[in-house]
Formats: sequence, structure tokens, C-alpha cells
Amino acid sequence: MPASFDLKSYLEDKRRQVNQWLTHYINQRFDNNRQLCQAMSYSLMAGGKRLRPILCLAAAEAVGQTDDPHVMTCACALEMIHTYSLVHDDLPAMDNDQLRRGQPTCHVQFDEATAILAGDALLTLAFEVLSELAVDHPMGGSAMQRISRAAGYQGMIEGQMRDLEAESKTLDIDSLKQMHEFKTGALIEAAVVSGALLAHAASAQIGALSDYAKSIGLAFQVTDDILNVEGDPDLMGKAAGTDLKRQKSTYPGLMGLGPSKAFARELVNNALQAIAHFDTKTQPLSALANYIIERKR
Amino acid sequence: MPASFDLKSYLEDKRRQVNQWLTHYINQRFDNNRQLCQAMSYSLMAGGKRLRPILCLAAAEAVGQTDDPHVMTCACALEMIHTYSLVHDDLPAMDNDQLRRGQPTCHVQFDEATAILAGDALLTLAFEVLSELAVDHPMGGSAMQRISRAAGYQGMIEGQMRDLEAESKTLDIDSLKQMHEFKTGALIEAAVVSGALLAHAASAQIGALSDYAKSIGLAFQVTDDILNVEGDPDLMGKAAGTDLKRQKSTYPGLMGLGPSKAFARELVNNALQAIAHFDTKTQPLSALANYIIERKR
Repeated sequence: MPASFDLKSYLEDKRRQVNQWLTHYINQRFDNNRQLCQAMSYSLMAGGKRLRPILCLAAAEAVGQTDDPHVMTCACALEMIHTYSLVHDDLPAMDNDQLRRGQPTCHVQFDEATAILAGDALLTLAFEVLSELAVDHPMGGSAMQRISRAAGYQGMIEGQMRDLEAESKTLDIDSLKQMHEFKTGALIEAAVVSGALLAHAASAQIGALSDYAKSIGLAFQVTDDILNVEGDPDLMGKAAGTDLKRQKSTYPGLMGLGPSKAFARELVNNALQAIAHFDTKTQPLSALANYIIERKR
Repeated sequence: MPASFDLKSYLEDKRRQVNQWLTHYINQRFDNNRQLCQAMSYSLMAGGKRLRPILCLAAAEAVGQTDDPHVMTCACALEMIHTYSLVHDDLPAMDNDQLRRGQPTCHVQFDEATAILAGDALLTLAFEVLSELAVDHPMGGSAMQRISRAAGYQGMIEGQMRDLEAESKTLDIDSLKQMHEFKTGALIEAAVVSGALLAHAASAQIGALSDYAKSIGLAFQVTDDILNVEGDPDLMGKAAGTDLKRQKSTYPGLMGLGPSKAFARELVNNALQAIAHFDTKTQPLSALANYIIERKR
């Protein structure tokens, strides 16, 4: 990767664009006198990394599509789905978290019923936005299909179920890996693949990008586990050490901190390898792969 | 309506078909060793009236389309959305109901976390199925757009939010009506309109069917309120008298039992009027309109 690529500016730029679009959706569609809309905006705009939308945009760029509003629509839908999953995962009956992205979780700020409904509504809004895309764009339906599968009972939701079942149990590395492939890997892969689909990628490109995404998805989770051990709660906007307290199986717990870091690095190298034959338009994807294991939050 | 039309057989026949399709989805897709899938099947197959899917099928028939698998796919997605909304509405943080369709509610049968995730997964599966439809059928994207809007923050979910906010408050008739238009009316309308869209209805037909649906949607809710006062819990598969206990605003409470029945009849007459200029293929829709206020559960 040429030293000239400035990932920090790239991330800031894309984050700003995604936030602008999300704000636009909120201003254009929401009735802010309604508590449901207030809770949806609150969680959506609580300041996430916007990793999934940025991966979607960067994948479209990698196959030659820049600044396409269709891709941005899909990117925003991905963030809505990710946000809904956080709102529901934080609920008292689930992980019972009080703090998210440095702010009180949705059910703490509002109440439990509102948080359940706001999550439901963010998920539904994502599919409303994607169905508009399916009407407007020839690949919109296919993108939506990938996203809905990844977000559902064979993907993210099954992963959260396994995560809950795994509390106070010791998983082996394979079960842990599989759980993460469901919980975070599937939607990250769908983010990359949907961006590429909307940019009319060839099927070999889709395959390579899917391999890239699977590796960084797992690297992301390994890094999350590492940050939970040695991260700075102020930088992360959430508590550290919670996995240990909940007796969760983690990579550092199962393989040690050093080998976990080496494993994350190996996964990122695999990701870089998968897209090595693309031309320089993969600079953002390559830089993102490195960022995923070097991030502090 | 000619006396020859046998609504009972029609309903039984369609219900059987919808249940067969839902069973097919479950058998083909679900891993029944997984608790998430078990909870999804449990709630989906707990034996509902299947009113929304039947309305979708009947609307397609009214514009000349019979036995189209695309319409059936959409009908099943509607039932998944309806079922998810029941699973979430029954949660302790919401209506805290123990009994649904004569069986323990999902969070009683499993647990709260599983019920939240099973609801999320049924909603996501509905959109997975609809996205397949969007890829296969030229009107699939439009049907999905109508359904996602009706199910979301401007429809069903906002209705549930208002219903919760209205507890222990007295609403006036207009606010009550508006709440129901959101909570049940929007999805019933989307069921009818999506069936018609998939059957390539002309826009004047869509308009007439939308009017029909709005009237029966409200009639359905007025009748629900009446049944909550004087219905038989054994026939309904759920408790009666709960509205009074929760101090909910209802039509019988605000306008009296007799005038509520007259209002429901007037709404059904409006519905019949809206589709009066269609030919005899509206027999099922007409019979359904009458059934909606005459039902015992």
C-alpha cells in the first residue's frame, strides 16, 4: 500500500457522509414529537464507527464505483441494522448493558418497551430503504437478499443466541469462531458484498471480496476480545473487562493474548491476499483491514 | 353476494394452504436443533386465523390472479410479520401476556431473550422471503415497499407505541381511531394492496382495494374491542376483559356496546361499497368483510 493513502482522512470523510445521509433520513422522515422516532434517532446518531457502511462504500470503490447514491442508501441501511442489533443486545433480558458508544443505552435513556420497539423500527426502516433500492436499482433485490440472510436466523441473530447460550460455558476455538462468523462476520460480509453487487462487480470479484470480508470479520471480533482485556474504556465508550466478569469464552482466554494478536494479524494478511490482484482502488479496503486490528475502540 | 359462496370452506382451504407453505419454509430452512428456530416455529405455527395472508390471496383473486406462488410467498411473509409483532407485544416490558392463540406466549414457553430474538428473526425472515420475491417478480419490490412502510415507525410499530402510551389514559374517539389505523389498519391495508400489486392490478383497482382494506381494518379492531367485552375466552384462545382491567380506551368504553356494533357494521358496508363495481371475483373479499365483524375469535 503506498504511504500516500491517508486512512484517517478517508474514515473521517466517509463517516461524515454517512452521518449526513442518516441525518437526512431522520429530518426528512421522522416526527420528532414521537418518542419512537426520538429513540430511533438517539441510537442511530450516538456516534458509532460506521464500519459496515464504510466497508460497503469501499467495496463499491474497489470495483470502480464512487459516490453512487444507491450504494450510500445501502450503507445507511446496514448501519440501521447494526444499530438495531445493539439496541436489542443491550436489553436487560440480553446483555443488560448500561453504556453504549459512551452514552446511556436506549432502554436506560427511554424505557425497555421503547427500546424494543425502536430496535424493531430501525430494522424495519432498513428494509423500507432497501426496498426502495430494489425498485430503483437492478441489483437492489440481490443486495437486500444477501443482507437479510446475513442479519437473520442463519446469521447475526443466531450468533447473538449462541453468544447468550455460551455464557458461563467454555467453548472450544471452533465453536467460538463459528459463533462470531454468525454474530458479526455475516453482516460484515454482506456489507462488502452488497456494495460490490450494487457496483456491478463480476462474480470473481464478489468471491474475492467475500473472502476478504470473512477474514476481516473474524479479525474484528478477535480484536474486540483483545480490547475487552486491555482496551481503554474512555476510548471505547464502553466498559472493559466485561467478558471476564461474564465468564465469556474469548480468544485471549482460550489461546492467550499474544497468540490472539498473532491470529488477528494472520487473518488480516489473508484478507490482503484475497484482494491482492485488484488494482490500486483497493487502497481503502487494505487500509481498513489493518485499521481493524490496530483500532483502540 | 350469492348465497352459494361458502366462506367457511374458503377460509379452511386457504388456511390449510398458508400453513402448508409456512411448514414448507420451516422444514426446508430451519435447523430444529437450534432453540432460535424452535421458538420461531412455535410462534408461527401456534394456529392463528391467518387473516392477513388470506386477505392478500383474496385481493389477488379479486383482480384475476389465482394460485400464484408469488402471492403465496408474500402472504406467508405477512404472517411472519404479524407473528413477530405478537411475540414482541406479549413481552413482559410490553403487554406482559401469558397466553396467545390458546398457548403459552413465546417468552413463557422459552425465555425473554429467546422471544426477543425469535421476533427479530421472524421479521428478518419475512424480508428475506420478500427480497427473493423482489428478485423474481417485477412488482416484488413495490409490494415489499408497501409492507415495510406499513410495518414500521409510521405504521404498526408506532401503533403499538401509542397503545402503550394510552394505558391508564382516556383517548378521544379520533385518537383511538388513529392509533388503530397505525396498529392494525396499516398492515391489513398492505396485505390487500400487496396481493393486488403482485396480481398486476390497475391503479384504480388498488385505490378501491385500499379503501376496502382501511374500512375492514378498523372494523376488525372495533370487533376486537367488542370481543374483549363479551367474547368467550375459550373460543378466542386468550383472556377477555383485559382492556377494562388495563383501563384501556376502547370503542365500547367510549361509545357503548350497541353503537360500537353499529359502527362496525357501517364500516363493513363502506368496505363492500368500495369494491361494489368489481365483478364476482370479490366474493371472498365481501364474505371476509362480513366475517370480520361476525367472528367469535
